[in-house]
Amino acid sequence: MSFSPLIRQLIDSLRILPGVGQKTAQRMALQLLERDRSGGQRLAQALNAAMEGVGHCKRCRSLSEDEVCQLCLDERRDDSLLCVVEGPMDVHAVEQTGFRGRYFVLKGHLSPLDGLGPEAIGIPELLERIEAGAFSEVILATNPTVEGEATAHYIAQILAGKGLVASRIAHGMPLGGELELVDGGTLAHALAGRRPISL
Amino acid sequence: MSFSPLIRQLIDSLRILPGVGQKTAQRMALQLLERDRSGGQRLAQALNAAMEGVGHCKRCRSLSEDEVCQLCLDERRDDSLLCVVEGPMDVHAVEQTGFRGRYFVLKGHLSPLDGLGPEAIGIPELLERIEAGAFSEVILATNPTVEGEATAHYIAQILAGKGLVASRIAHGMPLGGELELVDGGTLAHALAGRRPISL
Repeated sequence: MSFSPLIRQLIDSLRILPGVGQKTAQRMALQLLERDRSGGQRLAQALNAAMEGVGHCKRCRSLSEDEVCQLCLDERRDDSLLCVVEGPMDVHAVEQTGFRGRYFVLKGHLSPLDGLGPEAIGIPELLERIEAGAFSEVILATNPTVEGEATAHYIAQILAGKGLVASRIAHGMPLGGELELVDGGTLAHALAGRRPISL
Repeated sequence: MSFSPLIRQLIDSLRILPGVGQKTAQRMALQLLERDRSGGQRLAQALNAAMEGVGHCKRCRSLSEDEVCQLCLDERRDDSLLCVVEGPMDVHAVEQTGFRGRYFVLKGHLSPLDGLGPEAIGIPELLERIEAGAFSEVILATNPTVEGEATAHYIAQILAGKGLVASRIAHGMPLGGELELVDGGTLAHALAGRRPISL
């Protein structure tokens, strides 16, 4: 009641952002109005430009305003490695590790209960991409969740039929983690995946 | 490097929002692009409309797109009480308590070190507002910080010279707080401000 209609509308619109509730949205709206109107206008322009201009790279299916994204066009990258992930944010995460192969971005993971089968998440496009390329290894970097594992397993089975090497990112203890705090499943994976110490 | 220019621009623009760092901005940008483009466009429109349309109520100085805001126009409110606060967010907070008098919104608090004197925070306008009204009491609801106290004290001194009653919101234990966790200053105020228990 105590905010005027335009401010209420702004607060409601800000709430679509992930992690932003009523109180945070109020603080954001009033701070923009009180302290940074030009910043608010720049944000509006950036939103408009991105919502209208950004599509999907036709090669890796990641978000990009170009028909083929910069990562796919980069000629210095390794054309023999393909990393398959569940979303564009994962590309960014893997990129931070120094990986310099190619990517393919699924639309999430297989989830039969939600009606998301292989077609819905873009597995036919993945297979096309693999056939068009010359990959020696396909790294399945879906999330280590039940659905992510199932998705990796499904893709690995198809690739095995084509004689291609599919690998899965390792499971184990996160760096800096503590044995007593980590869940049993992770610790079991860490034990089963133990390696000889090279001295 | 791994985001395209329009996405990078959107991420940078989102970072002007209070409490939003690089990682949160990335998550917001990608979520809007992947799941809610129409929501993103509505947000852009709401931002534009608010940044351009919202000004300050000429009576209470709160944010409003009308020349005089709805709270000031509401005839059912008590014209004898004026509540002075530091910002528009505070109006909303006081409004939640059920207070139904009038408001005046300062531009923050006195802060001589930052060059913010009485003119900068709108004290002349406050005095004009008080003279134009017929208030029997002015409630100084600036924040209980050193600067807020100094601001309240400064205004109270001026009002005393005009024979007006100025009151200050009470300091004490917040409801649900614990004695052993509250700071010494607050506890001292709570003790000094003790009241007889009415049975």
